[in-house]
Formats: sequence, structure tokens, C-alpha cells
Amino acid sequence: MRILVQKFGGTSVADLTCMRQVQSKVEKALAEGYKVVCVLSAMAGETNRLLTMAREWSSRPDPSEQDVLVATGEQVSVALFSMLLKDAGWNARSILGFQMPMRTDNDFGKARIMAIDAEQLKKQMEVHDVLVAAGFQGCDDCQRITTLGRGGSDTSAVALAAALNAERCEIYTDVDGVYTTDPNLCSRARKLDRIAYDEMLEMASMGAKVLQIRSVEFAKKYNVPVLVRSTFSDASGTLVTKEDPSMEQVKVSGIAYDKDQARVTLREVPDRPGVAAAIFVPLADAGILVDMIIQNVSLQGRTDMTFTVSRSDLERTLELLEKVAEDIGATEVMHDLGVCKVSVIGVGMRNHSGVAGTAFRALTSENINIMMISTSEIKISCVIEEKYLELAVRTLHDAFGLDQNPGI
Amino acid sequence: MRILVQKFGGTSVADLTCMRQVQSKVEKALAEGYKVVCVLSAMAGETNRLLTMAREWSSRPDPSEQDVLVATGEQVSVALFSMLLKDAGWNARSILGFQMPMRTDNDFGKARIMAIDAEQLKKQMEVHDVLVAAGFQGCDDCQRITTLGRGGSDTSAVALAAALNAERCEIYTDVDGVYTTDPNLCSRARKLDRIAYDEMLEMASMGAKVLQIRSVEFAKKYNVPVLVRSTFSDASGTLVTKEDPSMEQVKVSGIAYDKDQARVTLREVPDRPGVAAAIFVPLADAGILVDMIIQNVSLQGRTDMTFTVSRSDLERTLELLEKVAEDIGATEVMHDLGVCKVSVIGVGMRNHSGVAGTAFRALTSENINIMMISTSEIKISCVIEEKYLELAVRTLHDAFGLDQNPGI
Repeated sequence: MRILVQKFGGTSVADLTCMRQVQSKVEKALAEGYKVVCVLSAMAGETNRLLTMAREWSSRPDPSEQDVLVATGEQVSVALFSMLLKDAGWNARSILGFQMPMRTDNDFGKARIMAIDAEQLKKQMEVHDVLVAAGFQGCDDCQRITTLGRGGSDTSAVALAAALNAERCEIYTDVDGVYTTDPNLCSRARKLDRIAYDEMLEMASMGAKVLQIRSVEFAKKYNVPVLVRSTFSDASGTLVTKEDPSMEQVKVSGIAYDKDQARVTLREVPDRPGVAAAIFVPLADAGILVDMIIQNVSLQGRTDMTFTVSRSDLERTLELLEKVAEDIGATEVMHDLGVCKVSVIGVGMRNHSGVAGTAFRALTSENINIMMISTSEIKISCVIEEKYLELAVRTLHDAFGLDQNPGI
Repeated sequence: MRILVQKFGGTSVADLTCMRQVQSKVEKALAEGYKVVCVLSAMAGETNRLLTMAREWSSRPDPSEQDVLVATGEQVSVALFSMLLKDAGWNARSILGFQMPMRTDNDFGKARIMAIDAEQLKKQMEVHDVLVAAGFQGCDDCQRITTLGRGGSDTSAVALAAALNAERCEIYTDVDGVYTTDPNLCSRARKLDRIAYDEMLEMASMGAKVLQIRSVEFAKKYNVPVLVRSTFSDASGTLVTKEDPSMEQVKVSGIAYDKDQARVTLREVPDRPGVAAAIFVPLADAGILVDMIIQNVSLQGRTDMTFTVSRSDLERTLELLEKVAEDIGATEVMHDLGVCKVSVIGVGMRNHSGVAGTAFRALTSENINIMMISTSEIKISCVIEEKYLELAVRTLHDAFGLDQNPGI
């Protein structure tokens, strides 16, 4: 039994016309001899409509009941699409989270998948051509409905592909693949034919919204080939897959950026053991993710400590630091919202030197000041002034020749 | 553990303001020391919206997928209302058909309840103040979602009350109880304090839309006291209960009517054995419910056969009879849409004679011609011309003194 998992997002199931497109994608796979698991999101706008309703009813909607509410969005999609397939003569059925069952923990609103009953699903696959699966939803051990968080349908699809040993997981969306950078910022951005899981993780974490980051982690863990492609064209898409030697021939695969950055500086922090913990433990306890951290060279026993957080966390960060600064004797807490982060990403960096130098030289040649730097094995990130964002992205894209097909 | 089941229909959960009313009813019961199972319908208009959607997607929507679709209506109601109760500090949770579980057969769209897991529900009742239960829905042995048919939430509520040995099942609606007749036709109609199950069954089957007929059958079978009352007032409502001797003191409890009647006559049917079967078996096979049947006295070996069907079945009835008439040698098939049925209902008829005579005399005194008559132990029905409907209802209401409280 050859199984293909195909996932369609909200814009792909927005109305009957869109669903006919989805139908043709499913029927193409059926014609190729696959059995298909078709994972659907809620119709575009539906999840927001339901969440708005919840907030009208309650200032802080109970998370478990909110999951019961929003899970209806996918339920509507799968019921309607199954009707279409059955009318066309296919042996299809809808399958909801509790019916799979897709077992999750009970962290309502952002539950994690614990187990999928693959045997039960395989039995269903034997008697059906297509299972139309509700994405985004699962159930906990007590049969309560859970949801996987925004974009969770991607994760549902990859998890089902892993459980069923599917040949491939196809993620259909309104773009035709993953690009070297955001085409809205850089007209020379080029669609990638392939990208490694780790590169995709870095791209996703930098705000490239093509795939939910957890779905990529899942795909990497279970080695599920994920093909990102467009519902509205026949373009070949981008294959997200494990690294292979040919990928390492290419130094850099893409340029990502993140505008959701705020820079915070504690001035004149006494430079003694335990100070970093005094600053960052309260932030971690408050669930605030600190990204880059820079500690200046100490002068006369005092140092400046600078770091970045996401803009939505800035207010709480400043509140917490007021007290911390007093406790540890820092003189001032400063912040800056006019910053952003650009990153150069590529698994090829592991085996090629000189990438950082090329990046810094390129930015410097345009007089873009680098405020902070962080690196990993496959990524170099720089914090710069936000007004230089577009210029920086285009400059780096050119510097690494990303508009040229590497021909590998 | 004293348990009360309270059911609220679509108009009672139409919006946040209505749901606040529902909340106050539930909180009143909680203050009285009850644990509450609160059964909700979909918000007014929602089921129709979903069914319209299904028909846009498919000319003949698959019944099982349509159930998956429309079951979302109740799911939305119970999630939202549970949020309200939790915000108010109550230990509440929503519970869907598959979670109860409410096991049904798999006759999608009009499934019948097979079993309720009372032990599982009682465990839930022990740890919660309120279970907010989705009406109208269940699941079959394969965990597929089913629905109980229009008005099925009444049946859900009565079935839950029976399974949990609830003290009472309260059905909240937009009227304040069951009336001696339709107040829109007869201004002297009076709200009944009590009515016997059998009387309610006759009222419901005659189109009194207060309770779904199956819920009354269920209540009778399991002897569940059902209190019909208004969400929007504190009036005491009408108790639907088992017959007791005091009820038999009253000859007649109510006057019902049914406009959904069409009269069909086969002219000059040869009067020989097997003719009735030849006519009525094809209709039964086609699922057409034949109500009253009259066969005239035979003249020269031929007779006229007259019966009533509901208007929506008339077209198919006439089609089927074309062929039957030819087969058996009847000369003509006639029909009449200008008829209706009025009924006098009361368990007291079992022990009182003279009810039929009073009814016939009353109609005759107003020159209303009685076209057909049928009687049961507790009901006398007459088919009359539709134009006399209102007059007949008021005349019968007066003839049995129904505007007077019997004082029992």
C-alpha cells in the first residue's frame, strides 16, 4: 500500500471552488495508485471567527473549552470535502482527532502529539481510498479535545505521514515553495528545489511562514520527506529533506529575517559571578525567550549587558528588569525597538569557511552597522537597524549569488 | 446526589444575552443543591446554516458526513456556555456525544439511542457541578458521529435524565408550557399545569411543537417527569407525567390540529379481498405514512377508498396510485388539499362516555361538515374543510370548557 499524505491550508479550502482544486490534487494522487490521507485546516477566517466569539463570551476563555470550540473549524472542512469525494464516487470518509485517535498531552491550545494509533489508521486505509483527516486537533487520554496551536495542521500531516510510513508528505499552500529569501523584499529571490530540515528550521524560526516549525522538527525526527507546493499551480515545489553531500556543496541556501526584535540593555552591571543568572532566570521563569546576549568587556568592574527579546515580550521584560536592576545595582535599563535581525543560513557552512567574512564585508560595504552577532553551525545572524532591513537582505542575497541556480 | 437535567433550545442559546438567562436557570438549580446536566441545542439558525452549506456542496449530501457537519452546531454552544460557567467559578465542562458516550445505531440523520454509559457519566457528575452536554448528537459503535434528527436535543435530555435517574428533566423553550390549544388560534387557550404522557404524545403528533414526539415516548418508557417551561420567565410550566386518577376526572385536556393534511380518494374500487393491500402496501414501502382511512359502503361491488397523507407526500402518493388504480381497476384518483384535522385529546375519555357526541354536536352547530372521523382510546379526530379550522378549534375548546381551570 503506497500512501501519500496531502495537507491543505485554510486558503486552499476557503470555498467550493478552492475545494475543487484540492479534489483534483487528491484525484491525481489516486490516479497514480496512492491511497491518500488528506489533512485539512479550517476554512480561511473560520478559526479567527471562532476565537473572536470566544473572546466575546469570556475575557479569558477556558483553554480546554476553547479547543472544543475551534476544533469545529476543521470538522466542518473535512465533512464538506468528504461529501465532494463521495459524490465523485470515491470511497472516502472524514476522520476527526478523537477518531484516529491522535493522542496528545492535555496542554490545551498547544498540545503535543504523544501517539497515533497507526494500526487503527492502516485498517481504515485498507477499506478507503481517501481519509479526510481534521488537522490541528487531537484528544488527550480522557478523550477531551485538544488543539496543537496555530499552524498545527502541518504537524498533524507530518505526524500522520510518519505513523503510516507514507512515501511523502505534501504541504499545499498559496506559495509554490520555499524561496532563498522573501520575494516581497528581494525580486531576485529564487525558489529552492530542495532544502535540508535544519535549514528549514532556521528559516521557519526566522519568520518564514511556509511551514510550522514543529512540523519540521517532526519531519526531521522521523525522516519524513516534505514537499511544499502550491494548490493553485502544478509547479514542482520545494522538497524539505535530510541533508546529503550535494547540499554541502552550496555554502548558503537562504537569507532570513525577523522584524519582531527589541533590544534591551542593562547599563553598568557589576561584573561579578551570579549576575547573569540574576538577570535571565526571572525572564525565563516568566516564559520570555531571550535570543542574542552580548556582554561588553568589563571596565572598572562594571559591564553593559545587551540582549534581544520579541517585541510582544518587551513590556513585561522591562517591568521585570526594573526590580532586577535595583537588586544587582545596574544604573539604567535601556531599550530600542528600531532593530531587526538578518540571518544567513546554509548547511554548507559546516564545511566552508569564510561565510561570516563575506557577510560582514557585504553589510559594511553598504554602511550597515552590525550591532550584535550570533552564529551557529549553519547560521550567522546580525542585529542591525531596522531601516536597513531590505537593503541588507538584498545585499546578502547578492553576495552569496543566491539568484543563481547552483545546478546541483 | 440529586440530579436535574435542563435542556435549552436554539432560541435560548442564540447569543450571549440569552446564554446569561440560561446561566441564571442553571445557577438557581445549583443553589437548590442539584448537580446539573445542561443539554444545549445549536444556536438559533446555526443548524440551518450548516445544512444550507451542505446542499451547496452536494446535491445529495452524504448522511454520515452531514452528521459530522451539523454536530458542530451543538459543539459550539456547549463550548461557549462552559466558558461562561467556568468564568463564574463553577466546576463545569462540556461533554460531546462521543464523550458521554451516547451510543446510537448508524441511521445517520435520524439515529436512535441504543445505550448511554451511565456509570461513566455518574463519575463525571461526581467531580463536576455542571455537565454541559451537546444535544442532538451521539456516536455509533465505530465512533462515527450521528445525529438524532430534528428536535433530537429533547430526546437527548430525556435519555440522559433516564440514565442518570434524574429527579426531573426540564425542557426550557420560548413558550411557558403546554396549552389547551394553540393560543394563536384561540385567545382563551389556557396553560396546563400537568399533562399525561399519552396526551402529550397525541398533542405532539398533531403538530404541537413544544416537545419532540420521541422524547415523550422516551419519557413515558422510563417514567421521567418532564417539566416544560420558559427560559425567559419564572412561570411554573407544564409537567408531563404519568397518568394518575385525578387526571381522569377531566374528560378532555386539549384541542390539537394539523394543517399538513391532504385527502386522496380512489373512486369505484372493486370491492374484493386484497384490494386494500394492493393500495396501501406500495405506499408503506415508499415510506408514506397514511393516517385516516375510510372505505364507503359497497355499491354494486365497487367502493370509494379515501385516506389522508401529509402534504409533502401527496405528489409521490399520486404517482404511485396512478399505477395501482390501473392494476386494480379503480376509475379515478382524486385529491383535495383544502382539508385539515382537528382532534380532541384526553385520558379522561377512557372512563367517560359522551365526548364524541359533544364534539360532533359542537361542530354541527357551527355548520362544519365532518368529512372523516377516527378515534382512539384518548383521542377523537375529525377531518374538516381547512377554512373552518380556527372556528372548529374555538368551538371545541368552548364545548369542553377548556378555558376553565378544572381545579384538580
